[in-house]
Amino acid sequence: MADFALLRDLLIPNKTKIFLLVMDGLGGLPMEPNGLTELETADTPNMDRLATEGIVGLHIPIRPGLTPGSGPAHLGLFGYDPLTYVIGRGALEAVGIGFDLQPHDLAARGNFCTIDSSGKVTDRRAGRISTTVNESLCTRLSQIQIPGAQVFVKMVEEHRFLLVLRGQGLSDKLNESDPQQPGVPPVDIRAEVPEAETAADIVRSFINQARKLLQDQHPANMILLRGFSHRPSWPQYQDVYGLKAASIAVYPMYRGVAQLVGMQELPTGHTIADEVTTLEEHWHKFDFFFLHVKKTDSYGEDGNFKAKVAIIEEVDQLMPRILALKPDVLIITGDHSTPALMRTHSWHPVPVLLWGRTVRPDTVQSFGERPCLAGGLGTFLSLELMPLALAHAQRLTKFGA
Amino acid sequence: MADFALLRDLLIPNKTKIFLLVMDGLGGLPMEPNGLTELETADTPNMDRLATEGIVGLHIPIRPGLTPGSGPAHLGLFGYDPLTYVIGRGALEAVGIGFDLQPHDLAARGNFCTIDSSGKVTDRRAGRISTTVNESLCTRLSQIQIPGAQVFVKMVEEHRFLLVLRGQGLSDKLNESDPQQPGVPPVDIRAEVPEAETAADIVRSFINQARKLLQDQHPANMILLRGFSHRPSWPQYQDVYGLKAASIAVYPMYRGVAQLVGMQELPTGHTIADEVTTLEEHWHKFDFFFLHVKKTDSYGEDGNFKAKVAIIEEVDQLMPRILALKPDVLIITGDHSTPALMRTHSWHPVPVLLWGRTVRPDTVQSFGERPCLAGGLGTFLSLELMPLALAHAQRLTKFGA
Repeated sequence: MADFALLRDLLIPNKTKIFLLVMDGLGGLPMEPNGLTELETADTPNMDRLATEGIVGLHIPIRPGLTPGSGPAHLGLFGYDPLTYVIGRGALEAVGIGFDLQPHDLAARGNFCTIDSSGKVTDRRAGRISTTVNESLCTRLSQIQIPGAQVFVKMVEEHRFLLVLRGQGLSDKLNESDPQQPGVPPVDIRAEVPEAETAADIVRSFINQARKLLQDQHPANMILLRGFSHRPSWPQYQDVYGLKAASIAVYPMYRGVAQLVGMQELPTGHTIADEVTTLEEHWHKFDFFFLHVKKTDSYGEDGNFKAKVAIIEEVDQLMPRILALKPDVLIITGDHSTPALMRTHSWHPVPVLLWGRTVRPDTVQSFGERPCLAGGLGTFLSLELMPLALAHAQRLTKFGA
Repeated sequence: MADFALLRDLLIPNKTKIFLLVMDGLGGLPMEPNGLTELETADTPNMDRLATEGIVGLHIPIRPGLTPGSGPAHLGLFGYDPLTYVIGRGALEAVGIGFDLQPHDLAARGNFCTIDSSGKVTDRRAGRISTTVNESLCTRLSQIQIPGAQVFVKMVEEHRFLLVLRGQGLSDKLNESDPQQPGVPPVDIRAEVPEAETAADIVRSFINQARKLLQDQHPANMILLRGFSHRPSWPQYQDVYGLKAASIAVYPMYRGVAQLVGMQELPTGHTIADEVTTLEEHWHKFDFFFLHVKKTDSYGEDGNFKAKVAIIEEVDQLMPRILALKPDVLIITGDHSTPALMRTHSWHPVPVLLWGRTVRPDTVQSFGERPCLAGGLGTFLSLELMPLALAHAQRLTKFGA
């Protein structure tokens, strides 16, 4: 991870601005031998010029060979080692749907499931009920009242929901009720430490009431809970980097992860141009901006090479508006690779371009995976990016005399 | 090291096959300024094609600047940090000669030595007696009988032998009897912890009987023992990588190290073509194959540049047979460098080629040290190779959501 204590000691105030543009799943692969990747295929005159003036390389999201989920990949980019900064599944579910999890909230990931007349689980996913059915069941469960806790039940998708219990002293040291296999009843909730007894009582009360409310709702006639967790309390951008930071993202997951490291969410529209407009409107208010483009990843997962290329070109066309803001440090990259060839996230290193007044240019003149192999940044762990950004933003003083 | 706990969590089942071809001591140096290395000199049309389609780089066996022995170099390739996974000298000697060391066996490296009439060591290596003499002395020492332990004495070479004591509760916490200098008597064996007293008694009994049996065998009239150790109990390939793995190697040392990480030894003939035949015969039975080619290293140690080149070419000519098996992931590399110029192992990074459906090709079109410098794998620690192999074999799921 970025050595936060060390960086904090070296921080010096400055007015410089850093802009981090993340095209989700940017890294790609050729669709056929000797072909070009999505980024290499895209016509990107603006980024090519920035690559010529700037410095490029490739970053490894987690460790070599490891394919990241979206959360860990962004944490790496933000300078937080994803192997150290791990978020519980319940809290991640909350982040993912944009639920404003408070520091003492106890969150859990819920599944609707099917049980038979003897109480044994027959389908851990309740036949993957529709999201519409899920929503009405969540409304039903939201009626549950428990002394000592406020109850939130939020639809996620298919059979999945989020449970949040808001109260005092609700420990997350509880076992999971999901037996992980059919043919046995849900596991009873137990406190794993004495101070979790209060939370265990409240969760058991929730489960008992849920069982009654769902008994006529076959196949979704029971629930399973796992991943009890709190909102993580992580170092904040202002504190460790001295940056007042903002996030611009359409999807709640990315705003949520950014919020966990102290970035302020900026409301924005649905297009990439809308996001750039949001950037322009708030440019004077923050030191650091994270702007997230989702569709490169979505089209990668669809296996739609051409559409992914088109999104990259759309971003390229917006670069003049971004450059007009005169960022001191401009970083263009992805959080991980999502090659259309593979239709999924992958472990491949991610192209990155860093542009600013103090970069030492390399010989690379275009932005693409193969050109980046020859770039001056080399291939490095994602979490090393933020110290470089701070350095180029003249926000770090000398180490030692 | 490969983070085994993490990898184990991420493993997913697959039918893919990984083939690791190790040309021992592959890395080289030019014999004169501006010359080519052994690998660069070799005519390798098949490997050059694979380099074009695949991705290349260089791996560092232990850490920069450290020259590995064969054992540590292979452990690194297998994903086991050689600085963590250290094997005692006695156990290593057993592995090296193919002795089937059992979990409770106590192994030691033995030297025949010379003592004078006062019992002082005058030559720690007994004038480097011939291996033939060594063998007859080992037969003599094999007569030794000790209550509580079965005795094995195996010739290694020159003055060196292997002692294995098979019994119950034989701790390896014993000091060495080798005084490391002449002019003093052998050091008495002592238990370093109370539970090693049984082992100390048995070893002292062995030494006393050996002294009597050797008294008329000048210059080999005494023995020195060191490196008391057990067979290490290391994570196994099946467990940490989910791979049913096999080794194909002519020399016992390499089969032995592979066996320590859970690979099954496949009996094979003496030529490289024989080894490929063994590969073909067992292809359907395993997920992972390690095939070891020794002579690149032997000729490197002989300083025989041309012969080393010829072995590399011999391997290249066998590549079509290997490719016909349709490996999902094919890795061609060495365990370390043995430049003919230096006539010894060296610390230089080792060329590596990775080929498979999901590689992101680089711009390199031939397999050699200089081309590999521009390769997409970059320069990395050997122990990072296995996670990459697993990733390309589609055997790892995503980390985090």
